[in-house]
Amino acid sequence: MATEARLLLLLFLTAAASAWEMNIRLPTERLAYGGGEAVVAPLIHALRPLLGFGGQLAARAGVACDSWRLAVEAHNVFGWKKVPASCEGYVGHYMLGGHYHRDSPSSSTRPSPTLKLAGNGKEIWVFDIDETSLSNLPYFAKHGFRTTLYNDTCFREYVAEGSTLALPETRRLYRRLLQLGVKPVFLTSRTEDERNITVTNLRRQGYSGWMKLLLKPAVHTAGELLGSAVAFKSGERQKLEDAGFTIVGNIGDQWSDILGAPEGARTFKLPDPLYYIG
Amino acid sequence: MATEARLLLLLFLTAAASAWEMNIRLPTERLAYGGGEAVVAPLIHALRPLLGFGGQLAARAGVACDSWRLAVEAHNVFGWKKVPASCEGYVGHYMLGGHYHRDSPSSSTRPSPTLKLAGNGKEIWVFDIDETSLSNLPYFAKHGFRTTLYNDTCFREYVAEGSTLALPETRRLYRRLLQLGVKPVFLTSRTEDERNITVTNLRRQGYSGWMKLLLKPAVHTAGELLGSAVAFKSGERQKLEDAGFTIVGNIGDQWSDILGAPEGARTFKLPDPLYYIG
Repeated sequence: MATEARLLLLLFLTAAASAWEMNIRLPTERLAYGGGEAVVAPLIHALRPLLGFGGQLAARAGVACDSWRLAVEAHNVFGWKKVPASCEGYVGHYMLGGHYHRDSPSSSTRPSPTLKLAGNGKEIWVFDIDETSLSNLPYFAKHGFRTTLYNDTCFREYVAEGSTLALPETRRLYRRLLQLGVKPVFLTSRTEDERNITVTNLRRQGYSGWMKLLLKPAVHTAGELLGSAVAFKSGERQKLEDAGFTIVGNIGDQWSDILGAPEGARTFKLPDPLYYIG
Repeated sequence: MATEARLLLLLFLTAAASAWEMNIRLPTERLAYGGGEAVVAPLIHALRPLLGFGGQLAARAGVACDSWRLAVEAHNVFGWKKVPASCEGYVGHYMLGGHYHRDSPSSSTRPSPTLKLAGNGKEIWVFDIDETSLSNLPYFAKHGFRTTLYNDTCFREYVAEGSTLALPETRRLYRRLLQLGVKPVFLTSRTEDERNITVTNLRRQGYSGWMKLLLKPAVHTAGELLGSAVAFKSGERQKLEDAGFTIVGNIGDQWSDILGAPEGARTFKLPDPLYYIG
């Protein structure tokens, strides 16, 4: 083969190889915070190459995975129990390849310009925890990106380790709001028996100074919690308003974090193609 | 240059050229329908090549256009007046390149399995018109894909031509529902003075047999309609329920089509990165 041809082929192969194996870390800010601990993003998963964009890959698999993901985010599909099996690769690449973080509303939109604050000390922002303030991605990456049914026992064991990771975009929003005098309130479907490990995990990941941490009562039978998430969360928001607080914002990864009055003056729906909570 | 190298280059250039100029038609079913007219999709726009996927292109332009689009669909950004200038190409390719149609919830999800019908003749499905039942894409393609401010005069002139096109996925849903005995109701922010041309346009595009066509009162000053779309549309839905009808479904391209009780038992949010109506 002539030199030029070999050179072109070499260039092509080099480009292909460079995309072949990437070890992915969660993008994490290396900031010192309250506890003085350094935040190090652990290695999660080695991705295989993504040749072609998501739609093409999905179409080959017979499911338009990016359309499915959009339907999830626009709340057109709901009550689903697992990610379509053919979308495991698509969802994995979406979650680990940077796209997920780029889609975070706290990175793609700017809350501050529309945020008119009274500065009266009664203004709060409601934060969901899982897949909003903390990410369980290391767990899901090990378990097929939720193409299998949810296993409550395994997941609770993982949560009990207290090793979930901060979502850097949410933590940035959290800290900015604290600076602006807005009080953070965590409102989560985690249960009261998980309070201690949740506090530990939040502190480890650089969250501090919250006003309240509201968890579900610890009634827990066969993976089912009493009452819907919408009823629990909107009820707790109502209590906060009844106590004289103004919910200037509300952020969560599930529509059940957002829907149900009072929603909050400004709402953010974070992407989550991994699971649905009604 | 050696033969092999020239051959490789030629192959590369051929592949590049094949993507270079594509004349795009809206995907339209060529079905005979009520009026017996054939539906022909007109040529809208010649697309320039899309090298790299949307995210890459957007990142180069300084705006993550696909993240912006997701934020629109998840209702994280609202009240916006125009598409970011750097996203014109991205939005154009999205709308004309097939992705938009693939994202239509009536093509990506199946309403029938979750649709439990009483078959009592009182079941209705609410359809929005613009960008839901009919598409104004030919207009927007000529006007920079809404990277410029909305011009009410020009747009109303276009609507008055009665030449907007059926969205084939919605028309398919519409016909399926008619077969199932569900009565279609059009509910639109178009005004009463546009009733005749709207009826003509809907018929031309293969819609027939609707129960009601509900338009806004023809009060129209400087492009502003009285009252919000949410108030108007939820009010009309309430009247329908008060009259004894059950809204088994509700489909629209704007969150203002969906939000506000009574929403309907099943809601579908169609993609729309072109404009926002609050």
